[in-house]
Amino acid sequence: MPEAASAQAIRAAIGDSEFDRDTALTAREPGVYDIDLSAGWTITNAVNGGYLLAVLGRALADALPHPDPFTVSAHYLTASQPGPAVVRTETVRTGRTLSTGQASLFQFDEQGNEVERIRVLASYGDLDSLPDDVRTTAAPPALPPMDQCFGPEDGPAPVDGSSEIAGRLMLKLDPSTLGWALGKPSGKGEMRGWFGLADGRDPDPLALLLAVDALPPTAFEMGLTGWVPTVELTVHIRCRPAPGPLRVSITTRNLAGGFLEEDAEVWDSAGRLVAQSRQLARVRL
Amino acid sequence: MPEAASAQAIRAAIGDSEFDRDTALTAREPGVYDIDLSAGWTITNAVNGGYLLAVLGRALADALPHPDPFTVSAHYLTASQPGPAVVRTETVRTGRTLSTGQASLFQFDEQGNEVERIRVLASYGDLDSLPDDVRTTAAPPALPPMDQCFGPEDGPAPVDGSSEIAGRLMLKLDPSTLGWALGKPSGKGEMRGWFGLADGRDPDPLALLLAVDALPPTAFEMGLTGWVPTVELTVHIRCRPAPGPLRVSITTRNLAGGFLEEDAEVWDSAGRLVAQSRQLARVRL
Repeated sequence: MPEAASAQAIRAAIGDSEFDRDTALTAREPGVYDIDLSAGWTITNAVNGGYLLAVLGRALADALPHPDPFTVSAHYLTASQPGPAVVRTETVRTGRTLSTGQASLFQFDEQGNEVERIRVLASYGDLDSLPDDVRTTAAPPALPPMDQCFGPEDGPAPVDGSSEIAGRLMLKLDPSTLGWALGKPSGKGEMRGWFGLADGRDPDPLALLLAVDALPPTAFEMGLTGWVPTVELTVHIRCRPAPGPLRVSITTRNLAGGFLEEDAEVWDSAGRLVAQSRQLARVRL
Repeated sequence: MPEAASAQAIRAAIGDSEFDRDTALTAREPGVYDIDLSAGWTITNAVNGGYLLAVLGRALADALPHPDPFTVSAHYLTASQPGPAVVRTETVRTGRTLSTGQASLFQFDEQGNEVERIRVLASYGDLDSLPDDVRTTAAPPALPPMDQCFGPEDGPAPVDGSSEIAGRLMLKLDPSTLGWALGKPSGKGEMRGWFGLADGRDPDPLALLLAVDALPPTAFEMGLTGWVPTVELTVHIRCRPAPGPLRVSITTRNLAGGFLEEDAEVWDSAGRLVAQSRQLARVRL
């Protein structure tokens, strides 16, 4: 694959990429961190929820004795804006194989008072310490090859071109879930695609926190339009991802009472299920 | 159905049942509650995680301005025992349609120090305020009629008879997910059955918090034995359940690295999907 070889030549390294720079925190005191939320991860002016999750996940990776997020539960309180924020963490419990922490991200009102944006509970462990056993009945999503999928650069904006985050991601969506972009939504609660970072940085557990909330909402394929704000999102990181692009599949089975769930599965280039997430989101009918 | 009519005659009312008495809290001060965890909800001496979730859910229903749990995320820290406990709540955010709270349940070590057992983040609303729209592609599980399903009272203990909780529940399991009880697990990560409270109390949102963690672990049908401790469990309550028995379906797609997820769907007697949950649990291989 000449494309892969060429991409590899300019690939940003984990630790030295846009994503790493934009999730970098400065410790103000033990467990308290300052960050300037980058405008590069916004979708129609709101900061993407997966980017926020990665920021909080990175703070907890620093604060807790274990390095990797195993399960992160986030409740989204108010919409974040680009600019200064502070993350406050608490170590809830430290165990031999798992430790549990809490983290909140705050921004500031006009008087300088802290306003809480998002709060998470998370349990961390060491993915490298897990046994190799795999007994899964889940299968990777059937995706067309990447060059038969479509991203925002492929023409009349199948993904909203006004969003800064589009320039940070390598997102190639399965045309069978892109009916909405042509005015013909399929009616199915499905969204699938290839996912990577635009500068070629390989995935790690923190990037998986971004990947589960990066595709357009399934609501678009169900014929709805507009903002679908996340109320709650929980992600389980099941395996350290192999280098290379990820496959992401999102499904919604139940749109009812003005809410829907979005279940995401993320598969790595080695064909392993590396993350599972579910979010509850609001829709405007 | 003569059985249903007869059961109705002796049915305990919501608010006056074993479940209500055993989840009743005494306010010590605003937002802080005492409770004596009942030994009636134990499984091989540990207090059931769904019962604990209902206790915390009830505390937050009292502390928050909205009555119903919409989404509750719990991280289980240490195993709870029957006996005294204290629940401490915090109101995180109050909105017009949703409010978010946090709650922790503590017990006491030999020196009387508080030891945290479980911490939850939860967003509450009013289920009765939701619009009636339903667009679901999910279908209720295909379950045999209740009289063709099996519970602990039906013979050689298909459900562990040493567990006190068995006497509090009406649990009738689909025989096609009971191979493990006969020494012949199917190898599939599935567990299905009818669920109710033994005293006939009808389900409400708090009882749904119990229902999602009440069936035997899917790990049994995957050929594993022993305790499958929950690390994290998130439940979404999607609809107020109609009176009558619930159908519960649990599936596991990914057992890997010593962990598995259990996805529960709960359907009410009116055929509506009333709750969805996912937990991450540990297995011993």
